[in-house]
Amino acid sequence: MGAKIEKTHFCHGGQLYYCSHDSRETGTQMRFSLFLPPQASGGTPYVIFLSGLTCTEDNFTTKAGAYAKAAALGIAVLAPDTSPRGEDVADDDAYDLGQGAGFYLDALQEPWKKHFRMESYLVSELLPLAEQSFGLDPKRKSITGHSMGGHGALTLYFRHPGLFQSCSAFAPIVAPAQVPWGQKAFTAYLGDSRETWLAHDATELVSKAATEKEILIDQGLADPFLEEQLQPELFQTACNKVGQKLTLRLQDGYDHSYFFIQSFIGDHLKFHANNF
Amino acid sequence: MGAKIEKTHFCHGGQLYYCSHDSRETGTQMRFSLFLPPQASGGTPYVIFLSGLTCTEDNFTTKAGAYAKAAALGIAVLAPDTSPRGEDVADDDAYDLGQGAGFYLDALQEPWKKHFRMESYLVSELLPLAEQSFGLDPKRKSITGHSMGGHGALTLYFRHPGLFQSCSAFAPIVAPAQVPWGQKAFTAYLGDSRETWLAHDATELVSKAATEKEILIDQGLADPFLEEQLQPELFQTACNKVGQKLTLRLQDGYDHSYFFIQSFIGDHLKFHANNF
Repeated sequence: MGAKIEKTHFCHGGQLYYCSHDSRETGTQMRFSLFLPPQASGGTPYVIFLSGLTCTEDNFTTKAGAYAKAAALGIAVLAPDTSPRGEDVADDDAYDLGQGAGFYLDALQEPWKKHFRMESYLVSELLPLAEQSFGLDPKRKSITGHSMGGHGALTLYFRHPGLFQSCSAFAPIVAPAQVPWGQKAFTAYLGDSRETWLAHDATELVSKAATEKEILIDQGLADPFLEEQLQPELFQTACNKVGQKLTLRLQDGYDHSYFFIQSFIGDHLKFHANNF
Repeated sequence: MGAKIEKTHFCHGGQLYYCSHDSRETGTQMRFSLFLPPQASGGTPYVIFLSGLTCTEDNFTTKAGAYAKAAALGIAVLAPDTSPRGEDVADDDAYDLGQGAGFYLDALQEPWKKHFRMESYLVSELLPLAEQSFGLDPKRKSITGHSMGGHGALTLYFRHPGLFQSCSAFAPIVAPAQVPWGQKAFTAYLGDSRETWLAHDATELVSKAATEKEILIDQGLADPFLEEQLQPELFQTACNKVGQKLTLRLQDGYDHSYFFIQSFIGDHLKFHANNF
C-alpha cells in the first residue's frame, strides 16, 4: 500500500510532503510528513523524529524549524504521527493514553492491542515505505524524538540493533517503568508484567544493548516535567555502568516546548549527519 | 498601561515573550509576542512582523523559524495580533473581514470604527510600549509582513516616513484598491471614497512617498493568490515610475504558507540588519 501525497510545500529549496497511507499494522489510515532536501536524488540519508504526547505529524513539521539545517546538510526528515487514530480506535479521555499517546510499542492488552502497534508500524512498515517511495537510503537512517518520542527513539534504537546509525533525544522519558507517564501507559498497553515493561525502558535496555556510538540528549532545566517524569540522570547512571557513550546537555532556562526543540534541532541533525 | 508577560520561553539563547495589554486605541486587550536576542542589553534594534488574514500573534511566532537568525544577528522581533478581538468587538462570518482581518488601518465606518484602529494602535501605542518595556531602540526599527501584513508593512512604511529604517514583505497585497480582498475590506472599513482607499494602497502611496532605501519583496510563483489578490507587478511598475528601489524575488515553486516564509525570513532579517 503506497503513500498518498496529501499536500506539498516548497521549503528551503527542498520539498515537504504531508502523506497518508492505509497501514496493515495499525489497521487504520496513518499520516506522516517527509522533508526531502534539495540535494535528494535517491539514496538520501534521513532522520526520523518521533513526537511527544498529544502531537500529530504536524507539530514537529510546523514548529521545529528543522528544515533549514536539513536542507544545508542534505538530510531528509520523516515525522510520523504518534498513534493510530479514528472513531473505531480505542481511546481515553486523558491526554497521556490512547490516541496521541502510542508510546512507540505494540500493545498486548485489550482494548489497545488491535490498533496500537506503533513499533511494528514504524520498523516494519513506515520506514520501508518511506524509503521506497521517496528514495531514502535504508542504510543511512537515524532516530531522534521528544519526550514520549525520546523514549521511542531510545527504545527503538536499542531494540533494533543496527537499524539506526545513531540516536539522540530531546527531554526523553528515559525510565518509563519508574515514572507516572510510563507506568500508566505500560499498565494499560502491556499489562502488569514488570519484565515486559523493562523491554521498553531505555534505562534498562542500555545495560543489554549498549552501542559503540555516542548518544546525544538535550534536556532543559526549566522543563516542568524534569523531576517527576524525565529524570535523565537515571539513564546517565545506567550508561556509565556499561560504558555507553552519552552526551547529556543540561540546558539552563529551557522548557519542554518546541521553542526548546527548535533551539537545538540543528545540533542534532548535524550530530546524525556526522554519523552517516 | 504596561504589558503583562503571559508566557516566556528560552529560545536560541534569547527570550521569547507572549504578552497582553489593555489598549487605549482599540479599547480591547491586545496580544503580541516579542523575541529578545541573547545580546539584548537596551537599545536593541528590532523588526516588526505583521501577519496575514486569520492569524494571531502566534502563527509567525511558532511557524516562521525566525529566531535562530534573529539571535545570530542580535535583532528583536515583535509580532502583533492582526486585529482587536472579543465578544463585544464587531465581527463577520467571513475569514477576510473583522476579527483576524484588521488590515492595519483605522476604520471610519460603523460597526468597525470603535475598535478597529490597528494603524494608531501599532504606531502610537504598541511600538512605544514595546520599546519602553523591553529596551528596544526607537531609532532602529524596521517592518515586514505577510500577505495582508505585507500590505500593512508597505503602507505603514510609506505613511510614516522615517519611522522605520527599512521595509520588506512576503507575498504582500500591494494594490488593495484593485483586488477583491482589499476592495471588500476597504468598503467595510473606509467606505466608498476612492481617495480614502488610495491613502492605504502601497501601489498608490509609492508615487508620493518613495524613499531612498531599497524594498525587498519575496513572492512565491505557486502562490494560489498570486494572480487575483497579489499581483506584485502592479507595485513593481509603480516603483519603476518614481525610482523607488525594489528587489522583487519571484520564487519558483513556493506557495503562500509559512513554509515559504520560513524559507526566506533569514534573508529578510539580514536585509533589515544591514539597514540599521
